[in-house]
Amino acid sequence: MLTLHFTPNTCALASLIALEESGLAFEVKRVDFASSEQRSPAYLDINPKGRVPALSTDRGVLTETPAILAYIAQVAPERRLAPLDDPFAFGQLQAFTAYLCSTVHVAHAHFRRGARWSDDPAAQETMRAKVPQNMAECFGLIEATMPAGPWAMGEAYSVADPYLFTVAGWLKPDGVDIDGFPRVAAHRARMLERPAVARALERAAG
Amino acid sequence: MLTLHFTPNTCALASLIALEESGLAFEVKRVDFASSEQRSPAYLDINPKGRVPALSTDRGVLTETPAILAYIAQVAPERRLAPLDDPFAFGQLQAFTAYLCSTVHVAHAHFRRGARWSDDPAAQETMRAKVPQNMAECFGLIEATMPAGPWAMGEAYSVADPYLFTVAGWLKPDGVDIDGFPRVAAHRARMLERPAVARALERAAG
Ligand SMILES: N[C@@H](CCC(=O)N[C@@H](CS)C(=O)NCC(=O)O)C(=O)O
Ligand SMILES: N[C@@H](CCC(=O)N[C@@H](CS)C(=O)NCC(=O)O)C(=O)O
Repeated sequence: MLTLHFTPNTCALASLIALEESGLAFEVKRVDFASSEQRSPAYLDINPKGRVPALSTDRGVLTETPAILAYIAQVAPERRLAPLDDPFAFGQLQAFTAYLCSTVHVAHAHFRRGARWSDDPAAQETMRAKVPQNMAECFGLIEATMPAGPWAMGEAYSVADPYLFTVAGWLKPDGVDIDGFPRVAAHRARMLERPAVARALERAAG
Repeated sequence: MLTLHFTPNTCALASLIALEESGLAFEVKRVDFASSEQRSPAYLDINPKGRVPALSTDRGVLTETPAILAYIAQVAPERRLAPLDDPFAFGQLQAFTAYLCSTVHVAHAHFRRGARWSDDPAAQETMRAKVPQNMAECFGLIEATMPAGPWAMGEAYSVADPYLFTVAGWLKPDGVDIDGFPRVAAHRARMLERPAVARALERAAG
């Protein structure tokens, strides 16, 4: 059995949608940021990094969104959520998820989590001020380099799509108008028509 | 033919070592940071992100260290540089490379590249001041959670090893004593005995 450790309004939404798409049996366990549960001893036993998502499996725990997404695609091969038999195409998918993880997510994290990188509240304020510019630059690059679609990696839907959907959902709170990126906005609308996305959003809200 | 776009003293060393381990034919093209070549139109045509590494292949360019490392392991399967037939073990490797990419590399980048996240020189100075603490925390977690070894993922050498070696090489310039992390230090020493690592370091220097 798979258990996703999840908090609403975080990058864990990507893994939740991917699980809904996979047809795999899974449970969701909420991690309550309001009470700092991510730093509780019980949760640190699951993920010593004190972050979500984490995916408990029969073999142990996996962390890090790109790793969890590739894992889900691999254990549900019949859903074709990644080009598992094509190392180059798989590499392109992984380049996309690694970019979202290491650059776009990190750009966004400087809005609320600046204390990770500076102890000075005034410095954190200057980081927050730059987030809209950085997020707009990242999405400018995504918009310019995305394949023709309809999905993030081209014709085939993949685990890259829930991740793009999740990170694009941060544009508005970060003060960036998604309509400046018409292909990203169209992708978002397309995602909202998928039953798995609706199920994930309902679970996240409930 | 594979071409690695490479700059010395960067994360691209991980991909260079992995290529040396792979037995694949490849070339190295240097990207000169001193003249900002990474932002030249010619290089942006290769990698619009303006970063190294990038790996040119017959099918196109791959970017992002974790993606390049998994690709190399997949196209040189006989070298067993990743547990390709075990999705959970592959997921653990990917969780490790994603952590190095999204958290440890990013912690380090706040030393010299603070201008990415704040326009204020004083704020960048406060980020720089926090780098030793953040790098020490990251390596504290790695030291505590690494499998028994001898390699980063346990008994089998993998593409995770060149990446750990590369990032651990930043501890000293970041003001952190690697001897505080005896298993990481022992890993580093073990890596330096590998002919592929020696070849990569020679190429990087030359
Ligand atoms: N590189 C990790 C990042 C995970 C991460 O930073 N998650 C955030 C939520 S989006 C978190 O758990 N933050 C809690 C905290 O910082 O205390 C991934 O991609 O999964
Ligand atoms: N997420 C990328 C990061 C690549 C990256 O930031 N590379 C640095 C060198 S370590 C770079 O090219 N910096 C050049 C610049 O910022 O202008 C990866 O893991 O490959």
